[in-house]
Amino acid sequence: MSPLQYGFTDDGRRFTIDSPTAMPHASAFLWNRRMMLQATCRGFASAQFMQPEPAKYAHAPTLEARSFMQPEQPVYAHHPGRFCYVKDEDDGTLFSLPHEPVRAPADAFAFEAGVDTIAWRIEHDGLAFEWRLALPVDDVAELWTLRVRNRSKRTRRLSLYPYFPVGYMSWMNQSATWREDLGGIVCSSITPYQKVEDYFVQRDFMDRTVLLHANAPDAWDARQFAFEGEGGLHAPAGIADAVLLGRRDADYEMPTAVLQYRVVLADGDAHEERFVFGPARDDAQIQALRSKYLVPGAFEAAAAAYAEYLAAARGCIDIHTPDPWLDAFANHWLPRQVYYHGDVNRLTTDPQTRNLLQDHMGMAYLQPATARAAFLRALSQQASSGAMPDGILLVDGAQLKYINQVPHTDHCVWLPVFLQAYLDETGDDALLDVPVTDSQGHVASVAARVDKAMHWLLSARDARGLGYIAQGDWCDPMNMVGYKGRGVSGWLTLATAHALRLWAGIRARHAGIAAADAFVQGARDCNDAANAHLWDGDWYARGITDDDVAFGVRGDTEGRIYLNPQSWAMLSGAADPARRAQLLAAVESQLVSPHGVAMLDPPYTAMREDVGRLTQKFPGSAENGSIYNHAAAFYLHALYAVGDADRAWRVLRAMLPGPDANDLLQRGQLPVFVPNYYRGDWRGHPRTAGRSSQLFNTGTAAWLYRCLIEGLFGLRGEGDALRIAPQLPSHWSQASALRRFRGADVELQVRRVPGLPAMRVRADGQWLDTPLLRGIVAGGRHRVDVEVPG
Amino acid sequence: MSPLQYGFTDDGRRFTIDSPTAMPHASAFLWNRRMMLQATCRGFASAQFMQPEPAKYAHAPTLEARSFMQPEQPVYAHHPGRFCYVKDEDDGTLFSLPHEPVRAPADAFAFEAGVDTIAWRIEHDGLAFEWRLALPVDDVAELWTLRVRNRSKRTRRLSLYPYFPVGYMSWMNQSATWREDLGGIVCSSITPYQKVEDYFVQRDFMDRTVLLHANAPDAWDARQFAFEGEGGLHAPAGIADAVLLGRRDADYEMPTAVLQYRVVLADGDAHEERFVFGPARDDAQIQALRSKYLVPGAFEAAAAAYAEYLAAARGCIDIHTPDPWLDAFANHWLPRQVYYHGDVNRLTTDPQTRNLLQDHMGMAYLQPATARAAFLRALSQQASSGAMPDGILLVDGAQLKYINQVPHTDHCVWLPVFLQAYLDETGDDALLDVPVTDSQGHVASVAARVDKAMHWLLSARDARGLGYIAQGDWCDPMNMVGYKGRGVSGWLTLATAHALRLWAGIRARHAGIAAADAFVQGARDCNDAANAHLWDGDWYARGITDDDVAFGVRGDTEGRIYLNPQSWAMLSGAADPARRAQLLAAVESQLVSPHGVAMLDPPYTAMREDVGRLTQKFPGSAENGSIYNHAAAFYLHALYAVGDADRAWRVLRAMLPGPDANDLLQRGQLPVFVPNYYRGDWRGHPRTAGRSSQLFNTGTAAWLYRCLIEGLFGLRGEGDALRIAPQLPSHWSQASALRRFRGADVELQVRRVPGLPAMRVRADGQWLDTPLLRGIVAGGRHRVDVEVPG
Repeated sequence: MSPLQYGFTDDGRRFTIDSPTAMPHASAFLWNRRMMLQATCRGFASAQFMQPEPAKYAHAPTLEARSFMQPEQPVYAHHPGRFCYVKDEDDGTLFSLPHEPVRAPADAFAFEAGVDTIAWRIEHDGLAFEWRLALPVDDVAELWTLRVRNRSKRTRRLSLYPYFPVGYMSWMNQSATWREDLGGIVCSSITPYQKVEDYFVQRDFMDRTVLLHANAPDAWDARQFAFEGEGGLHAPAGIADAVLLGRRDADYEMPTAVLQYRVVLADGDAHEERFVFGPARDDAQIQALRSKYLVPGAFEAAAAAYAEYLAAARGCIDIHTPDPWLDAFANHWLPRQVYYHGDVNRLTTDPQTRNLLQDHMGMAYLQPATARAAFLRALSQQASSGAMPDGILLVDGAQLKYINQVPHTDHCVWLPVFLQAYLDETGDDALLDVPVTDSQGHVASVAARVDKAMHWLLSARDARGLGYIAQGDWCDPMNMVGYKGRGVSGWLTLATAHALRLWAGIRARHAGIAAADAFVQGARDCNDAANAHLWDGDWYARGITDDDVAFGVRGDTEGRIYLNPQSWAMLSGAADPARRAQLLAAVESQLVSPHGVAMLDPPYTAMREDVGRLTQKFPGSAENGSIYNHAAAFYLHALYAVGDADRAWRVLRAMLPGPDANDLLQRGQLPVFVPNYYRGDWRGHPRTAGRSSQLFNTGTAAWLYRCLIEGLFGLRGEGDALRIAPQLPSHWSQASALRRFRGADVELQVRRVPGLPAMRVRADGQWLDTPLLRGIVAGGRHRVDVEVPG
Repeated sequence: MSPLQYGFTDDGRRFTIDSPTAMPHASAFLWNRRMMLQATCRGFASAQFMQPEPAKYAHAPTLEARSFMQPEQPVYAHHPGRFCYVKDEDDGTLFSLPHEPVRAPADAFAFEAGVDTIAWRIEHDGLAFEWRLALPVDDVAELWTLRVRNRSKRTRRLSLYPYFPVGYMSWMNQSATWREDLGGIVCSSITPYQKVEDYFVQRDFMDRTVLLHANAPDAWDARQFAFEGEGGLHAPAGIADAVLLGRRDADYEMPTAVLQYRVVLADGDAHEERFVFGPARDDAQIQALRSKYLVPGAFEAAAAAYAEYLAAARGCIDIHTPDPWLDAFANHWLPRQVYYHGDVNRLTTDPQTRNLLQDHMGMAYLQPATARAAFLRALSQQASSGAMPDGILLVDGAQLKYINQVPHTDHCVWLPVFLQAYLDETGDDALLDVPVTDSQGHVASVAARVDKAMHWLLSARDARGLGYIAQGDWCDPMNMVGYKGRGVSGWLTLATAHALRLWAGIRARHAGIAAADAFVQGARDCNDAANAHLWDGDWYARGITDDDVAFGVRGDTEGRIYLNPQSWAMLSGAADPARRAQLLAAVESQLVSPHGVAMLDPPYTAMREDVGRLTQKFPGSAENGSIYNHAAAFYLHALYAVGDADRAWRVLRAMLPGPDANDLLQRGQLPVFVPNYYRGDWRGHPRTAGRSSQLFNTGTAAWLYRCLIEGLFGLRGEGDALRIAPQLPSHWSQASALRRFRGADVELQVRRVPGLPAMRVRADGQWLDTPLLRGIVAGGRHRVDVEVPG
C-alpha cells in the first residue's frame, strides 16, 4: 500500500485523507440551525433534526432506540449512509461512491472535511467523480451534488444510481412511492402508539422522508429488499439483474430511495446531478423544498448563505505558530465547534445546566449577545433555594430527560465560571444588574441571583465544610457516592472555592469589597476543609462516600488518583506551592499517558458499589481511565493559571490528533474537532488506547478555545484593558496572532529573545510597565510586540 | 426453478419447506419457561428472555429500542442470526448454513419447523449438513447441534465456522474474549446510565453473552468488524484471508462469536459439534451451563425433558378430518401456541387484562389449574369500583407499560367470557365461591367480584345506555373516539350485553334466578340501546364520538362497516333473525376477502381526528383493513353460536396458510401458528394482501382452539355433561376426534348420512334423546357416533 496522504489545505478550511480503509471511522460533521449530520469517509452518515426533540429521517434497518448522540456507534453494511452505485453499461463493472456498499478499491480517493461542505473525490478507471454535501442555514435538507467527468480517452456509457437508504421508519406503517408530480421518491411512515395528548404535539411532525432530484431519472426503486434481492447491498439484484431499476413501490415494507441515470459521456465530457434529501410533513413542504433548492443557482445561493452564517461567528483570534495544524485548527475548526455548541445547544431541548453554561462560556468569544441570552435564560430557571436545576429547558414543553433526572449538586459552580470569562471578554458589567424573573414570578438581579446560588453552594456542605455530591457532580461519573445524603465530593468542594473566589472578585468590583466578604470567607473555608480532610499526602482525594470512605487516595488500588481535584485545587488556591509541586508530580507520574492526561488511574476493573456508575464502566470506557478531554482542559486551564507553559503545551497538543501519521491512525479521527475523549488505559489496552470517541459534543471545545486565547496567547480582557501574557512553549521561537477584542483588532507578535531577563511588552510602539493594553475602542487597531526570555 | 416442496411430516409434528428464497420470512418459534426464539428459514433469529422484563442476548448492530415483539420486523444482512460458514480447504469454496450470510445456492435445502426443534438439512457438493436448535425447559440457553456427513466419494478437508453474531450490546462498554477455562467466547457489556434505584434491580442481570462448545476449536474470533474486514459478511476477510481465524478479542468494540473447526472427512465419515449460546451473569453461571449441557448425553436429556414439558399440556382433542393440514395444526400446533400464551403469558410482566383472560380461556382446555390461578390473580387486581385494570402485573415491581397506560373500558367483559369457557370445560363451579383479596386487603368471593365488575360495566354507560369507550376498547384501535368522556363504543355495548348474559346464566345456576335478574335486565337494556342507537339499517355502527358522530355507518366512505359489532350482536342476542340475515349479508359482501374476513372496510386512507389511532394507520397496517384474526375468530365463534357451519368453515380455514402453494407463498408463513393478522385491503394492495404478520402473540389462538373444540366438533361441557353438536362443513362426509374431557376419553365419529332428517347421536351404543353425554368420570372411555344429514 502506498503511504497515507492526508493534511489540511493551505487555507486550513479543508482536511483531506486519501484512504477509506486506513481510518474507517474518520468523520466530519456539518450542522445548521435545525439539524446535524456526521459522515464517515466510507459514506455512512448519522443525521438528526429537531422537531422539537431530536428526530431522524434516515434510519437503521431495525427499531432504533432514541438516545443522545452515541459515541463510537458502530457502522455496518445497512447503517444509514449516502451512496451512489456506478455501473459501466459496456462491461458491467459495478462500484459505489464513496466506498460503501460495494467497497471496490478506487484508483484515487479523497475524503475532504470542509468547514462548510463534506466532499469525496474518487477516480475509477478514468472516471473522476465528486460527491458533495452542503446544508442550507435554516431548512432540514441535505444538498447533494454528483459530478462525473470522463477522462478515459473513450466514450463511456454509464448508469449512475444515487442510493439513499431510508431504513425502518415505523413498525406501524411505512411505504414509499415515486411521485412524478413532486419529482422524487416520497417515503411515508406513521408514528406508532400515540397517546391522545401526544397526538396534538406530533401531528405536524415531518414524518416523511424524501429524495428529490433536479433532473428526472430514467428509473427508480423504492423497495429496499427487492432492490437488494439475493445479491445483497454489495451487488444488488436491482442493478445486476436488469437494465433498468424495477420502479417498485414499498407497501408496508422497508422503504429506500434509489434513482438511475443513464448517461453517455464522450472523452472529456462531464455530467452533474443535484439532489435534496430530508424530511417533510406533506406535499406542500416537499414542493417548497423543490422550489427553493432545485432551481438553477439555488445550491450556490444556499452555499453563500451558509458562508455568511459561519462568518457571523468567526473566531476572535487568528494565530500563526510553528505548528500549522494547530493554526488551522485554532483559526477555523475550534471556533466552528464552539459555535456549533453555542448556536444550536448540541441540538437538545434540555442541555445540562453545566453544559449550557460552559458552551456559552465559549460562545462569549464569538457571539457575546447569544451567550448573554443563554445565561439569563439559565438563571431564570433558578429555584427559590438558589439551586440551579439539572438541565435548562429551551423550548415550551421540553422535559428533563436521561441524566437530567438524576440529582447533581455542581450546577451553581458554573455561573461565576461563565461570568468571569464573559465579563473579561465583553466588559459588560451591566449584566449584573439585569433583573431576572423566575418561574414563580420572583424578580431579582443577576448579582442577587448569583449571590443566592453561592450561598446555596455554601449551605450544601456537611459539618466538615465539604460539598455534598448527592447522585453526581460535573460529568456525572458517580451516582452512588452520596445518594444516601452524606457523601461529599472533593472536586466539588474545591470547585466551590474556585467559584466563590471568582464571584468575590466580580462582586467586589461591582458593589465593593464588603459585598464579597462572605464569598472570600466561604472560599477560604472550602479550601481549608479540603486541605484538612481531602489532602492525601501527595494529592487531593476525589471524595468521601456516604459511609465515610475516602476514595481517589493512595490506599486505593483502582481509581487511586483523579485529575479534577488536582486541577481545581490549583485554581481555587487550596494547594500552596509545596502541595502544588507534589500534586503535579503525582499527575505527571500517574496520569500522563502517551495519548494525553487520563481522568483517573488506575482504571477500575470492577464495580465499586460505594462509587457507582463510573466504576461499573470497565476499563477503557468513557470516563473510566480515558483521556477525558474536558477534564484535561480544566487541567490545561489550571496550568496556564499557574504559569506552567511547557507542561500546558504538552497537554494542549495531545488533545488534537496528528500531524504524525501513527498518531492520526491510532486515534482514528481527523483533526477537525476535539472529541469528548480518547480511550485511555494505555498499559492495559495498548491496541485501542488513544482511539477517539468521534463525539464532537463536549465542553472541551469552549475550554480549549479559552485556553488558546487567554493561556497560550495570553490575551485576556481585564476591566477595560487587554492583559498581555503569552505563554508559548519554550521550543517556539516566535508566534503571532490577530486578536479581535471589543471591536478592535490587536496584532500580536511574540518573539523569544535569548538573554532577556523577563518578558516585556510594547504596545503601539510604547514599552509598557504593566502588560495591559488600554484605550481599546471599537474599530481601533493595535500592534503589540512581546519579547520573552529565550 | 423446481417447484416448491413443502408439507407436514406424517405425524404432523414437523413442517418442512425446501427453499430459503421462496418464503424468505417463513419462520418457526420455540420457547421455554424463560425465553422465546423465532428463526427464519434463512437463519435470522429474534430471541428474548425475561429478567424479569424482556431482554436480549443477541442484538442488532445498532442501539435497539426496547419494545414488545415487533410484527413484520425487517431482517437485513447484520440482523441477529445463527449461522455456520463452511470452507472447502482444498478449493477455497465458501458457503454458509443455513443460507445467510453467503447466500450460496444449496444442492438441497430443508427448513424444518418442529414442535420441539428447529432444524435445517442442507446439501452442498456431496456434503450433507444438519443445523439444529433445541431449548431446555428452564434455562435461557440455545442448544445447537452441527452435523456433517461426507457423501462425496472423496476425502474432504473442511473448515467449519459456527458464527453467532452478538451485535451492539451497550454503548457504555462492551468487549469479548476467548476464555479457555470456560470453553468458549464470553461477551461482556455494561448497562448504561443506571439510576441508583435501578442498579439494585439490575446488578444481577445476565449481561454477558456466551458461546460455549463441547470440543475446543482450532481457532476463534471475537471482534465483529475485524472478522468481516473489507470482505463483508458474505465473504469475511477473517475466513478468506487466512488459514486460521485471527483469535482477536473485542475491546470496547462490537463483539461476535465465531469458532473454527478444521476437519478431514473420508467418504462416509460424519462429524458432530455441539454448542450452547445464551446469556449469563458470571463465570459461575457459565460453568454451570457447561456442566449441565456440554457433557455426554446432556442434549438428549434436555430433549426428553422438553418433550415432557410439551406433553404436560397436550391438547384436549385429536382430530381426523378430510383436511390433513387442519389435523396437523389442530393436534399439535394450535394447542402448542395456546400453551405458549398460557404458560409464559407472552413473556411479558404486565399482560393486558383482556389478553390474559382470553389466553387463559385457551389454557382452560390444556391446564385448567393454570387458567384458574391466572383468573384469580387478575381478579385480585380489581379496583374497588369493580373496574379491572388495563394490565395484570405478574411479578413484583412490574409496571403498566405502553398501551396499558391508556385508559380502556372493556376489561370487565372478559371475566364472564373466561368463566363460561372455564366452567364448561371443568365443571369447577366451586371457583365462584373462592375468596379473593385485593390490594387494599378487601376480601370478596369470585362471584361477588364479578357481580361488581358487571355493575361497573352497567354504570359506565351514557344516558342512552351505550358504553363509554374512553381511550380505547378491545384491541386498542381507537384512542380519540371518547377521550373527552362522551364517546361510546358500539362493540362494547354489545359485548357488555353478551358478558351480562353469560354471567346471568352462570349466576342463576350458582345462586338462583333472582341473583341473575339485574344482569338479564342489563343485557336487555344494552341490546335495546344498541338497536335504538347503533343499528344503521343493514348493520351495527362501531360507535359514536365525543361530538356525537356515529361511525362505521353507511354514510362513511372509509371504515363504513366493522366486523366486531356484527359478531357480538349475534352473540349478545341484539340481532333478531332478520337483522342477523342483513348483517351477515353485509359482512359477506363488504368484509369477506380472498384471504379472510377483514376487520373493517374500506380501509382508512387518512387520519380521522375523531377516531384516532386506528385511522392513522394507513391502509394495510395492523388493524386497519387487515384480516385481523382475533376479530375473525369472534366472528367464527358467533357463526358457530348461530349454527352457520359452512360460513364458519370458510372463516376458519382462511385463518391458516395453505395447503395451496400460492396461498402459502402469498402469506409467506408456515402453517405452524396462527398469526395476529394477515394484511388486508386486497383491492388496493393486491401484491401484499394476505401477507402474514409473522407474529404468534395473539388471542386468536385461544378462540380458534375453542371454536375447533366447541364449534366445529361441537364437544362442549355443559354442567356435568358433554354436549354433542358437531358442525362439519357440508362438503365433509365424515370426521372423527378423540376428546379428553374431565379425565375421560371420548371417541367421536361423525358421518354424513344422505337423507337423514336430523342429526342423531349414539353414545356408547345408545341413541340419545338429548345430545348430552353423561356419566363422565375420570379414567372413563366413551364412544360417540353422530350421524348428520348429508
